[in-house]
Amino acid sequence: MKDTSANLGELPLLSQVEQRMLSLLPEAPSTIRAAGYHHLTAGGSRVRARLALVTADALQLDHDTSVAISSACEILHNASLLHDDLQDGDATRRGTEAVWKKFGKNAAICTGDLFISAAYAALAFCTTPKLSRLITHMHLNTEAVILGQQADLEAKDYTYDGYADIAKMKSGPLLGLPVELCLLAAGHEEAVTIARRASYEIAIAYQVADDIHDMDSDMAKGAFNFTSLLAGSRADIVREAKMFASERAKEAQRLSGLLPYDSGKGLASLAQRFIVVETR
Amino acid sequence: MKDTSANLGELPLLSQVEQRMLSLLPEAPSTIRAAGYHHLTAGGSRVRARLALVTADALQLDHDTSVAISSACEILHNASLLHDDLQDGDATRRGTEAVWKKFGKNAAICTGDLFISAAYAALAFCTTPKLSRLITHMHLNTEAVILGQQADLEAKDYTYDGYADIAKMKSGPLLGLPVELCLLAAGHEEAVTIARRASYEIAIAYQVADDIHDMDSDMAKGAFNFTSLLAGSRADIVREAKMFASERAKEAQRLSGLLPYDSGKGLASLAQRFIVVETR
Repeated sequence: MKDTSANLGELPLLSQVEQRMLSLLPEAPSTIRAAGYHHLTAGGSRVRARLALVTADALQLDHDTSVAISSACEILHNASLLHDDLQDGDATRRGTEAVWKKFGKNAAICTGDLFISAAYAALAFCTTPKLSRLITHMHLNTEAVILGQQADLEAKDYTYDGYADIAKMKSGPLLGLPVELCLLAAGHEEAVTIARRASYEIAIAYQVADDIHDMDSDMAKGAFNFTSLLAGSRADIVREAKMFASERAKEAQRLSGLLPYDSGKGLASLAQRFIVVETR
Repeated sequence: MKDTSANLGELPLLSQVEQRMLSLLPEAPSTIRAAGYHHLTAGGSRVRARLALVTADALQLDHDTSVAISSACEILHNASLLHDDLQDGDATRRGTEAVWKKFGKNAAICTGDLFISAAYAALAFCTTPKLSRLITHMHLNTEAVILGQQADLEAKDYTYDGYADIAKMKSGPLLGLPVELCLLAAGHEEAVTIARRASYEIAIAYQVADDIHDMDSDMAKGAFNFTSLLAGSRADIVREAKMFASERAKEAQRLSGLLPYDSGKGLASLAQRFIVVETR
């Protein structure tokens, strides 16, 4: 999910979101503070934070609610990275050592735990009287992601459909969350399902694009890769995988277009990067 | 912390708290659901749930808020058990296999993550307009417990004071949380610090009592035990440790007595079991 930042434009509130996230680290010097700081300052495209800000702007949410939703989603996503890296044994994150590798496995568990809790503390800055509804929704999306991560850890033989199911559960709920929370805060409960479906399509497209990128390294370490489900020459396989992702992204764009007050523009912009333009 | 249930009496809302906790497990059959169900139905004295209900009753909080605070604190405590057992390598919990031992380490991480998130979803059932304040408070206590757990994992040489500091950080914030949230929901912000100090004293007394109980097994496996800080015959050591816990518990009772509208009665009752009555 690199270089999506440009698609989602310059967002003046983003620096406030960064500050909010850092302010939720423990104040006292400690391993947890150091680990959280290491993780948050290692870069990252902040796709979820940006999606929230773009959507909040379209829906004219107030400043505090926009920053709250944006920080909450981004911290929660980073919690999932902290624990996923540990579970998957990925030693590198954003070009530097993953937290579990640098600070130890126990510290990675503790820091991820802190980030989950901090996401709710971040959301509590919302000024909307719908806070309890937002919390419930964030929890249900968190539950879906956890089930997706566990299903991925347990998966042995992938089919086309099984792959798509896991891909959308693993990444979809936290991609859709920023948009869904903004819709709920704006009172557009009815549009949430559409945003979720769009985010699921993007999640699948994203995972396929990621697998194309990791084709050789996955093969070298015997990890499952989507491209192994396809047949033909290497060029054919890559082309077919890209077309598959592109179709998903187009469906995501169609769905995003149904969202009210142009609130789907962030999702549509994110989908755009997976769309293949046919040339002759 | 066995047998404290009797001290905190029969609580008619407790079965609703149990139901609420189970209702926050994922509906779909899955490893996470099975692991969460295994953990929640293995027993446990529900000290934090009871503390919340006793305190909420004293402060005349409404039904929904009482159940919400009680479930949130109990689920959060159980999240900490799931991850602590994994981190400490404790294979047994409540007389049965710990989740990490039965379902695997990754499932234990995922289930603990779910429980942290579910604690906030449980709290969102509060009817109070102070929900955002309660969330912020729950997060700060969660942060304190996480820092305490990490400090305990890193500790090498304990002193008397260092032991007490870690003991109170590890257990105090989640023991005090039920009482503190009830006080906040009732609008008694000023009393929160007193409840916290009382819960810290109880946490130390509890940890010392636990160490007396585990004296031989800790020695056998070379784990640190409070009694190793004391000198004399075995009987002298046990007596001195009990007196130390008792002094802490008495201070907890004194502080609990300062809380408004008899809202400290739950904490006082919990402290009572650590108080040694001198006989001739």
